[in-house]
Amino acid sequence: MKIAETARQVREVLNPVRRAEKTLGLVPTMGALHEGHLSLIDAARADCDFVAVSIFVNPLQFGPNEDLAAYPRAPERDLAACEARGVGLVFLPPVEAMYAGECLTQVSVARLSETLCGASRPGHFAGVCTVVTKLLHIVQPDRAYFGAKDYQQAAIIRKMVFDLDFPLTVVVCPTVREADGLAMSSRNAYLTPEQRRQAPALYGALKMAEGLIRRERPPADAVQAAVRRYLARHAADGMIDYVQIVDPAELSDVQTTDSAVLIALAVKFGGARLIDNLLVDAPGGDD
Amino acid sequence: MKIAETARQVREVLNPVRRAEKTLGLVPTMGALHEGHLSLIDAARADCDFVAVSIFVNPLQFGPNEDLAAYPRAPERDLAACEARGVGLVFLPPVEAMYAGECLTQVSVARLSETLCGASRPGHFAGVCTVVTKLLHIVQPDRAYFGAKDYQQAAIIRKMVFDLDFPLTVVVCPTVREADGLAMSSRNAYLTPEQRRQAPALYGALKMAEGLIRRERPPADAVQAAVRRYLARHAADGMIDYVQIVDPAELSDVQTTDSAVLIALAVKFGGARLIDNLLVDAPGGDD
Repeated sequence: MKIAETARQVREVLNPVRRAEKTLGLVPTMGALHEGHLSLIDAARADCDFVAVSIFVNPLQFGPNEDLAAYPRAPERDLAACEARGVGLVFLPPVEAMYAGECLTQVSVARLSETLCGASRPGHFAGVCTVVTKLLHIVQPDRAYFGAKDYQQAAIIRKMVFDLDFPLTVVVCPTVREADGLAMSSRNAYLTPEQRRQAPALYGALKMAEGLIRRERPPADAVQAAVRRYLARHAADGMIDYVQIVDPAELSDVQTTDSAVLIALAVKFGGARLIDNLLVDAPGGDD
Repeated sequence: MKIAETARQVREVLNPVRRAEKTLGLVPTMGALHEGHLSLIDAARADCDFVAVSIFVNPLQFGPNEDLAAYPRAPERDLAACEARGVGLVFLPPVEAMYAGECLTQVSVARLSETLCGASRPGHFAGVCTVVTKLLHIVQPDRAYFGAKDYQQAAIIRKMVFDLDFPLTVVVCPTVREADGLAMSSRNAYLTPEQRRQAPALYGALKMAEGLIRRERPPADAVQAAVRRYLARHAADGMIDYVQIVDPAELSDVQTTDSAVLIALAVKFGGARLIDNLLVDAPGGDD
């Protein structure tokens, strides 16, 4: 397994791979790898001849009051995990290598970036799109892998790749969960034992709402209210950031649940902001 | 010479070129090709094994009151000119092929886009950056060629390519002029005979200002005033949009002319908005 710290080093490793016409997969991460990330690596390994993983905690996508400094970092353990899963290259750039001089250029996706997490994290998705564009240009993969836990991020990146004609395929892989349903996240490490005990209520609320929708197809605001009640009961220490029932393609709020909907939520436990979502298909879709 | 109308067709033509490890040059244009464009093609032909030209009048970079509908189009003549200059591929997409569905994604470069032409054409450079990004992703050239007449555009694209780690080199070629000094532009076709007679005053004013700076290194506002007086005298029918003396890298207004400066101007003759610029190096730079 090779390790690169600069774009030039990445290209030195990957040019022979490309010249040999091997397919190249990229798994962009912020490190502190968990089984969710590793499932992306496994998917990439199954599809591609060569897999690159990037590990970069991107300052552009953190707001001024967010957890950039505290964000968990575990480069040694990450490298060992990548090596064990058959990764060919880890790109682990220092911030100065990614942002030499002031980055004046921004890639942004209107509308899809303004709802859900975008509403409470202004500039977040432009930061994501800008760094993902950089990573895609540096690695030039045939396929890039993202997790469904970050549904909005994946939707925005798909749209960006389509709109800008990036020559690659975006692959979105299912959310990986702990045994009790909590979605894997590097930010779970922030949770106190009591918060950790309550955190599976996010998924519990989503499953409850899914059942409600499948049974009754109630108005979206009734589902939202039920989710909020469920969270109040089972995650008393959590502060709800949002609970939204949205169109899975447009990410805009819906009134009814007669078509396919995405239930998405964000809850803060102290400094740990956790997100989760569940797609509920239209009536007659397979259960 | 091949002609492609879709990204897929471009890739079909260019994949074998890339596989043969030939260097690929792209000259992005809006068509109505003149000797300025052809000089870019010649430069690309001299540097690269294979040259692609794109011809696309990009709606995104025109403001609502600008000349999108009137912009000169001459596809037959353009294709003949490309063929005569040894172009390998012309990419001539219909608008629907470039913008399938609503383009929500935008690439923008802060600060450099807000001055000079950007001040009077809000959104223009984001439109340019977005379409150039698309063209670069579709063609994936090793080198892309732009003209120095559009100095600000070239500076913005250089910065975008650097900031986003595009794997290519931006080449900027000198402005090509008519015998009387008028910079070649597709928009010169809009000029009435009397406007055409006055239009060389843009370059006349720049050369006058260059002489003044070289002799006296006066304050920038004195140069600006002299340029405005020159234009009033020699281009009475022209409406000045801007005359600015700026830092050649930052494009921000300067107070003195003791360092290298760019003199840039835009003048409207009726519906024809003409631009030109001249770089004056620092004292001791070679004349």
